[in-house]
Amino acid sequence: MSSNVKVEPGSLLPAGFTFAGVACGIKSSGKRDLSLIVMDSPGVAAGIYTQNQIVAAPVVLCRSRTPGTQIRAVVTNSGNANACTGQQGMEDAEAMCSQVAALIGCTAEAVLVMSTGVIGQVLPMKQVQQGIDAAHADLSPDIDSFHNAADAICTTDDRRKIATSHFSFAGKEYRVAAMAKGAGMISPNMATMLAVVMTDAPISKSQALQVLQSAANRSFNRVSVDGHTSTNDTMLLLSSGQGDDLPPEAITAFQQAVDEISIRVAKMLVADGEGASHVIAIHIEGAASDGDAERIARTVGASPLVKTAITGGDPNWGRIVSAAGYAEVKIDPPNVCLSICGTEIYRNGSPVDYDEAKLSQQMQQSKEVPVQLIVGNGPGIADFWASDLTTEYVKFNSEYTT
Amino acid sequence: MSSNVKVEPGSLLPAGFTFAGVACGIKSSGKRDLSLIVMDSPGVAAGIYTQNQIVAAPVVLCRSRTPGTQIRAVVTNSGNANACTGQQGMEDAEAMCSQVAALIGCTAEAVLVMSTGVIGQVLPMKQVQQGIDAAHADLSPDIDSFHNAADAICTTDDRRKIATSHFSFAGKEYRVAAMAKGAGMISPNMATMLAVVMTDAPISKSQALQVLQSAANRSFNRVSVDGHTSTNDTMLLLSSGQGDDLPPEAITAFQQAVDEISIRVAKMLVADGEGASHVIAIHIEGAASDGDAERIARTVGASPLVKTAITGGDPNWGRIVSAAGYAEVKIDPPNVCLSICGTEIYRNGSPVDYDEAKLSQQMQQSKEVPVQLIVGNGPGIADFWASDLTTEYVKFNSEYTT
Repeated sequence: MSSNVKVEPGSLLPAGFTFAGVACGIKSSGKRDLSLIVMDSPGVAAGIYTQNQIVAAPVVLCRSRTPGTQIRAVVTNSGNANACTGQQGMEDAEAMCSQVAALIGCTAEAVLVMSTGVIGQVLPMKQVQQGIDAAHADLSPDIDSFHNAADAICTTDDRRKIATSHFSFAGKEYRVAAMAKGAGMISPNMATMLAVVMTDAPISKSQALQVLQSAANRSFNRVSVDGHTSTNDTMLLLSSGQGDDLPPEAITAFQQAVDEISIRVAKMLVADGEGASHVIAIHIEGAASDGDAERIARTVGASPLVKTAITGGDPNWGRIVSAAGYAEVKIDPPNVCLSICGTEIYRNGSPVDYDEAKLSQQMQQSKEVPVQLIVGNGPGIADFWASDLTTEYVKFNSEYTT
Repeated sequence: MSSNVKVEPGSLLPAGFTFAGVACGIKSSGKRDLSLIVMDSPGVAAGIYTQNQIVAAPVVLCRSRTPGTQIRAVVTNSGNANACTGQQGMEDAEAMCSQVAALIGCTAEAVLVMSTGVIGQVLPMKQVQQGIDAAHADLSPDIDSFHNAADAICTTDDRRKIATSHFSFAGKEYRVAAMAKGAGMISPNMATMLAVVMTDAPISKSQALQVLQSAANRSFNRVSVDGHTSTNDTMLLLSSGQGDDLPPEAITAFQQAVDEISIRVAKMLVADGEGASHVIAIHIEGAASDGDAERIARTVGASPLVKTAITGGDPNWGRIVSAAGYAEVKIDPPNVCLSICGTEIYRNGSPVDYDEAKLSQQMQQSKEVPVQLIVGNGPGIADFWASDLTTEYVKFNSEYTT
């Protein structure tokens, strides 16, 4: 077994996939806004979706089709979320799938669909239809097409978010690749996290769902920019793998590869959060359970007082420790310890002496600021990544008026 | 029964109280930082306190002394929270009470204490002792002294926060007055909400606690600046009233008066939140229960996307409705309706046409922006007040480095 994440995919894309990303005029910027991923043969797909009760049409459709074993394609448009669009929205999402199905020769039920962008507006279907035709004509297994497909799902993202990995089992190498878009704001409405993980490893649909859920719980479910759960959040895992499913002993290697690229892409998403100047890498130890640790990590990462302290390079233990104190799970105050960038600043419930000017400078110079908080003697641990909070974030989200 | 809130107390202060507020050098600004409230005779006191597990020394002391029937005084210092100060902090809090007790002639257990300001630093007891002596020498029942006492509990507050009311029962008039300090940040650490409600109405300690809890649940527990629960939050109710306790039929009038001034002062606190440009007045209807409605209101009020939309005068229904959708309580999406400043912009799950430019202008010109959200057909309602989120907030909390 080996697993080795590469930032640039090179030749590491999984076999059995083709990609395209085109501009069809949904985005007024003229940037790519229609993405198509096609598997050569019917494959396995699993999905996990937003917990918001207000759910966009494409999420409703995908939920009904995953997990599945006969999936052929995922079509995604950016620039319009097709959310809060009623019956018309459902018909448009279905029409996108039917058109792809007709072009590649499968049933509409074998096509998944995602949307991201403005909510409450009906999709410009003429542009979408042209886009699907153009993307289909452009399908290719090469790296440029993979990049185009990844670009075409982006909205306010400054950077493309992709990662690849591979692992070997019984002398055979399998590949895993991921693309995602960020969780910042879409003018004029809320953002969406979309991610697709692809592999040529043969897996069952139950394996796919299990691996996907596990990876999400270590990656996309452990990041926060602004704590706002969108109507469209979707994470898919597609397998083009043919033949016998991976035996249980190979699943560990597969899980590790999926975890790795998911965490990598999720961290890109935080680093590229609107206005973000630092990634806060929160590590919690000593909670009663992993769930409690996650809750504490999430509370610390969501606190605007913690976020602004990190923005300012301020090793403000008071804000961090008190955020842990109101997370609504038990902590053990006399045993609380805190380190920032590896420097311990609070030990067993009391502040300790340290070189504050040096640490502050170190925090300001780091793109990623590690915050390690021990909250007691329990077995619970969690890792969580949050963006900091800057005046740019507030400007971006307040100065726009619909 | 009558109840009539006045912003300026005039002669409406409750009988049986004297006040003082002095500067003793805890704050480097030289502003008033030692506040003393004394009842002429032993009176009733109830208190409610922070839910944070990291608790300051004065909170530990107050918790052990309330509710009580032999309380004489409340001493408060600002500029230092006496939090995370260990055994020394407990001894200092007790010393403050003992000194007041010796001066006014009572036991130390009859004195309550509050602190607010920097955490993790030991109190400068020499200054505190001088301040208590000076405040004791200055005690007076007049309005100027009440103002001084209210000023001396403030920290980053821009404005004094006081309100008074009165009510009559069986031909006798009773008075109620409140002072509070705001929930913004204290450099270099987290803030504190402190509030004292005073009355000359005779009440039992169980009545006092019940009225206080009920008022807090409609006022201070329904506001948010940054969602960060401090180590020192304290709300006290003091009664100097002698004679028979109020009969049950008079408690309604008393409750109403306490509610009114508590809501008034709590809203001042939001309006004076750090960097706040608008108060978001959130009204939720149609939830399954009042508790569910409160949870939705709190989620909407805490969303940085909602806050920044209000800052920018953006009637962004997508951000508000989707925040309700992830509040983790059941809503009924097809029956969701939303009005801002009285203009309906979302009805039964879909956006409606309205004059967007006019509404945006109205939002920008309003100090208080009413947001009314109907989430279904249930009986649950809640009111909640939140500050918006501005670049000034971020600057204030990030540009300071300890």
